[in-house]
Amino acid sequence: MFEQVQAAAERIRGYAHRTPIMTSRTLNERVGAEVFLKCENLQRMGAFKYRGARNAISRLSEVERQRGIITYSSGNHAQAVALVCREFGIPATIVMPDNAPATKRAATEGYGATVVAYNPDEQSRSALAEQLAAQHGYTIIPPYDHEDVIAGQGTAALELHQDVPNLDMLLVPCGGGGLLSGSAISTKALRPQCRVIGIEPEVANDAVRSFRTKSLVSIHNPPTIADGTRTPSLGQLTFPLVLEYVDDMQDVTEAAIIGAVQFLFYRLKLVVEPSGALGIAALLSGRVPTSSRVGVILSGGNVDAATMTHILAQ
Amino acid sequence: MFEQVQAAAERIRGYAHRTPIMTSRTLNERVGAEVFLKCENLQRMGAFKYRGARNAISRLSEVERQRGIITYSSGNHAQAVALVCREFGIPATIVMPDNAPATKRAATEGYGATVVAYNPDEQSRSALAEQLAAQHGYTIIPPYDHEDVIAGQGTAALELHQDVPNLDMLLVPCGGGGLLSGSAISTKALRPQCRVIGIEPEVANDAVRSFRTKSLVSIHNPPTIADGTRTPSLGQLTFPLVLEYVDDMQDVTEAAIIGAVQFLFYRLKLVVEPSGALGIAALLSGRVPTSSRVGVILSGGNVDAATMTHILAQ
Repeated sequence: MFEQVQAAAERIRGYAHRTPIMTSRTLNERVGAEVFLKCENLQRMGAFKYRGARNAISRLSEVERQRGIITYSSGNHAQAVALVCREFGIPATIVMPDNAPATKRAATEGYGATVVAYNPDEQSRSALAEQLAAQHGYTIIPPYDHEDVIAGQGTAALELHQDVPNLDMLLVPCGGGGLLSGSAISTKALRPQCRVIGIEPEVANDAVRSFRTKSLVSIHNPPTIADGTRTPSLGQLTFPLVLEYVDDMQDVTEAAIIGAVQFLFYRLKLVVEPSGALGIAALLSGRVPTSSRVGVILSGGNVDAATMTHILAQ
Repeated sequence: MFEQVQAAAERIRGYAHRTPIMTSRTLNERVGAEVFLKCENLQRMGAFKYRGARNAISRLSEVERQRGIITYSSGNHAQAVALVCREFGIPATIVMPDNAPATKRAATEGYGATVVAYNPDEQSRSALAEQLAAQHGYTIIPPYDHEDVIAGQGTAALELHQDVPNLDMLLVPCGGGGLLSGSAISTKALRPQCRVIGIEPEVANDAVRSFRTKSLVSIHNPPTIADGTRTPSLGQLTFPLVLEYVDDMQDVTEAAIIGAVQFLFYRLKLVVEPSGALGIAALLSGRVPTSSRVGVILSGGNVDAATMTHILAQ
């Protein structure tokens, strides 16, 4: 699988940002370790999702691309697909629940995509996407359970290990497991002794439980502020990859997530969305053993005014 | 004067961060120029003020330092002096109005300084500081009207010109004029053809008017959200320096300042305080002619929850 990550890195070069790595004396003193933050909140469209979308869509044939792309997501994957399609000058259709926040719909439409709303109580988003794909000849690029998407997401950790040698531990947010499995594949190829730990919200800890029991657990609509991790479960591809490549999984409370976003805002002056702050939440709340050199993927920075206002008011 | 900036750069090396320079495709497209952001919001204690305080306090004798430092400020200069004094292990006293926000007082005390509150209707802050300095043998480090402070602030633009050659224009926020005059001194030594433009809020445009009329204008307690620029006027040192080295001054509306903080939050994922966003406000609102290569100093990132919530609600 690592060869696919390396090929993805070549493919997205010059399109995705090679995001900076930040450090903070205050953070290091607080956790008693050297911490290296891979700033995917500074990635194009504000999240690592650009990497996977760019890689997957680049691999399609010109004929497939011209027929158009479809995906289902109300979050960063939707914006990533929309932006990549705009770059290629091809049509993008995004299936989104009809109760998705207006800001997310507007952001996706802002990149030129067509949004198709559905009633989540009546329809399955993937079934609707498959139906539209069959009707119109679209290619489906799912949000995480796709080899090229996973390979693309793995390029963030690849860059981190290239830029920061000798990490002992890497903390990665986990939603559907695309970023986590990609990061683990890169890490085990480049620095096998570095422990990869996936982090989830406690109220959305399906992957933690799936990892511990080795059978797939689902949680529907978990009440977490970390909206990027509200996916019900790991996927058919990501679950076995997580079991094979990830060393451990841990969960964090909602209060710890809020505290981490605040810490990043006030002390590092970085806008990081709740899902993106899971690794910092784990470090600051002592949910992971302290290592000497810790990498943390800040996976995204797309947070709306209402959510940030709520967080700053705590 | 530029020799003093160069000496300051040597003196603060290894203490102040050499802050990163960020760029944004979205910003470049929006303003039709290549824009380079010098991220002093990522400086120690969150603002450029650390540079001047570190330089000025480093130049004191060991005997002077042991007697202690005093200054008057309710903002970033207070925190900068407090942090530098903690680094030297010497006492710091900060004279602050008794109506200063509790968060600013707490931040300053958090660095170990002693805060002396005064009633701004009854006392002048500088007179009180002078009285305490005479009583206790403290050395006064004023917030801007001091050669070593100005030289220290000039190191940010020095680094920017070293890292980004051939800038055509440099936009610098203006409060008391320490950062602006220091930046202009560095620029005219390293890149004389680069136009240096100071930016102020329209409702606090004392320096714009002083620059145009060549006589010192004061505005007391201007109602601007950019609290770092509420200083009543340029100083005895900074006014002539601004007249000599700065090419132009422009002002921006409160709405433009709010829009700039929002843009930096949503598009660049950077937390920048209102005063720090003045250059972006000028660019986005078309108050400065577009050049091909524009430097902008994002001077600080210390913004409290109430102010950011107000800005995000607009």
